[in-house]
Amino acid sequence: MHPAEFRACGVISLTTDFGLKDPFVGVMKGQVLRRFPAARIVDLTHDILAHWPAEAGFWVARSFRYFPSGTVHVAVVDPGVGSSRDIAVVEAEGHLFLAPDNGLLASVLEQAQAPVVRRRLAADVLRALELPKPSATFHGRDIFAPLAAEIATGRLSPAALGEPVAELIPGWIEEPTVSVGQVAGVVVTIDHFGNLITNIDGALLAGMSHPVVRIAGRELPLRRTYSDVRPGEYLALVNSFGVVEVARAEQSAAGGLGIDRGAPITVLQR
Amino acid sequence: MHPAEFRACGVISLTTDFGLKDPFVGVMKGQVLRRFPAARIVDLTHDILAHWPAEAGFWVARSFRYFPSGTVHVAVVDPGVGSSRDIAVVEAEGHLFLAPDNGLLASVLEQAQAPVVRRRLAADVLRALELPKPSATFHGRDIFAPLAAEIATGRLSPAALGEPVAELIPGWIEEPTVSVGQVAGVVVTIDHFGNLITNIDGALLAGMSHPVVRIAGRELPLRRTYSDVRPGEYLALVNSFGVVEVARAEQSAAGGLGIDRGAPITVLQR
Amino acid sequence: MHPAEFRACGVISLTTDFGLKDPFVGVMKGQVLRRFPAARIVDLTHDILAHWPAEAGFWVARSFRYFPSGTVHVAVVDPGVGSSRDIAVVEAEGHLFLAPDNGLLASVLEQAQAPVVRRRLAADVLRALELPKPSATFHGRDIFAPLAAEIATGRLSPAALGEPVAELIPGWIEEPTVSVGQVAGVVVTIDHFGNLITNIDGALLAGMSHPVVRIAGRELPLRRTYSDVRPGEYLALVNSFGVVEVARAEQSAAGGLGIDRGAPITVLQR
Repeated sequence: MHPAEFRACGVISLTTDFGLKDPFVGVMKGQVLRRFPAARIVDLTHDILAHWPAEAGFWVARSFRYFPSGTVHVAVVDPGVGSSRDIAVVEAEGHLFLAPDNGLLASVLEQAQAPVVRRRLAADVLRALELPKPSATFHGRDIFAPLAAEIATGRLSPAALGEPVAELIPGWIEEPTVSVGQVAGVVVTIDHFGNLITNIDGALLAGMSHPVVRIAGRELPLRRTYSDVRPGEYLALVNSFGVVEVARAEQSAAGGLGIDRGAPITVLQR
Repeated sequence: MHPAEFRACGVISLTTDFGLKDPFVGVMKGQVLRRFPAARIVDLTHDILAHWPAEAGFWVARSFRYFPSGTVHVAVVDPGVGSSRDIAVVEAEGHLFLAPDNGLLASVLEQAQAPVVRRRLAADVLRALELPKPSATFHGRDIFAPLAAEIATGRLSPAALGEPVAELIPGWIEEPTVSVGQVAGVVVTIDHFGNLITNIDGALLAGMSHPVVRIAGRELPLRRTYSDVRPGEYLALVNSFGVVEVARAEQSAAGGLGIDRGAPITVLQR
Repeated sequence: MHPAEFRACGVISLTTDFGLKDPFVGVMKGQVLRRFPAARIVDLTHDILAHWPAEAGFWVARSFRYFPSGTVHVAVVDPGVGSSRDIAVVEAEGHLFLAPDNGLLASVLEQAQAPVVRRRLAADVLRALELPKPSATFHGRDIFAPLAAEIATGRLSPAALGEPVAELIPGWIEEPTVSVGQVAGVVVTIDHFGNLITNIDGALLAGMSHPVVRIAGRELPLRRTYSDVRPGEYLALVNSFGVVEVARAEQSAAGGLGIDRGAPITVLQR
């Protein structure tokens, strides 16, 4: 057996922009348990910026390796729900990813080794699973949850979802641009602590002996951890998810710099 | 066996106004696991508007059918905790509902087929389960969680909780009023996306060939899904929970219209 | 067997300041499931005030007895992550507690009967569990989650973590001071409802026949429950976690009094 083959382990991770204020995530879990009573369901996050699939894809791509091999990762950020978009199914490194085919999984395709990609019409999935007619506005509950449950039990194989295809809808944010002594990227998300998290992989800095980070008119040295500077000082580091992050020790960098998602950031050789 | 008879499946759903900031929900789960180590517990929502049972009941009534038959649904929004209110126990369509007897379950009684209703003094429940004296302020942890655990294991049958009664304390919001060519209701809750969710069931519109929704001085046509209008435009639809909803494509209708819970809404034949 | 001996039951509680906006808690759970597929993981809270371990310790100390005996309680509030702080391991009343050795567990040491304390270098833990090199900034995922999983399975005994020691780093807030007819403490946290929760244990009021609570220039009588006063009125009570709390019936005491964490509070004999 190829080591990266997907074999369902019964774990499902959920990533959405539904928030936790309403029962949307709860009913998705109910739907999973109806088909797979022994499912173990883990919330990755439900606070993705509403209608911005790029953030969801970023976190799934950077998080999936911390889950058991055989996990089904479901990500639903779906501004086009009810229109005729496909369902994207990606198999990679022993994990399985399900999402609307709207660019959400672009980061996974870039990060994961040898992804196998399938696209599936919602109508086909419904027929295969003998699902009732879905609502026009909540495919997370009506299609993705039952589909994930069937795959997570092992009853439905990804291969049964059709022939691999060459590509999916492309992602919404550009990959970093790399030139001599310089890497330019963007802030993808701002975390709970106000840290600015970018799409610049630490590996892109491998050739730089003295990298500095330029953001919002400042130049910040690259440090190892938050406690390497005094409280209130800014720093940059390659964070625990492997990407460049701008932080302020024991304070919010986003608040202090007035920076939001999409802001440009550059790493330079000094 | 009657198809709607309750047979415990080991799943418990939780709905409260406790929020997730404090350990209140966590200790309820701990209490469940002490009595029922194999319980599978799903959060429906814990962000019910503080002290407003109507919203909790609405979501439970509109969500329970997405859970496995045999689920115990616990809803605790309990401004009268510590006073001498009863505990309401409702059995319907193979599901079991537990809540303070303060009107919370009114929506369930309206929505569910052939509900069987019981009321139970907290003191009686305590005695039957040999529970220690409860706190005066946290019956969710001290009474509802152990009671739900005992029922969810199958050890305690709803029938053991006493004879059925005719009614519970009535709900806090009026049912929609239906007249010729017109249905009048209210906004029950505002979801994470700023959509206005009403208590008007889509079935009440069955006789209208051209329904329009009147709210905040506007008239909105009824659409199928969010992507049927351009970003920023308002629309009305029968949402995925079967009720009339007012939305603004990719934006917040609540913010745009300046509308809050309790606002009147009318559906008219045009 | 000593009744308070720790025997793993497979339950893990999690308390952090990570919030739920990002996938930090989700990847901790993924890490646990990789080593212990049958783990049952309960969130206590992830909204601890950022970088304030005292609040985390308070809630863990006041909550652990509502969990099954044999639970592993993991609490990570870790402003010094990446620096050379130890890992604290406390065994008490059949429960096991893991946290950074930064004062977080001080409340547990005060509350729990006969705690057995161990301190362990992160490097030693890594070696014993054959863990990969951890990130400098996310020990919750890279050290605490796998360590908790190994202990919760029963494969790793607390005794294997080394010889007991006499003490840990002390806590960040003072214990209440008790004098004749008076107890002085502080507000430790403000809950979801705006109730002010203090570090004054109700037992300290045992000798007072007519206790009154002085806070923010007011004197409040001690009541049994919220519904003992009219909506909008202030009251004090010994809450469901056994400590003195200041509340406002159906409203926010914190908002009304303009009080935040750390505010002084005194209980007097009248």
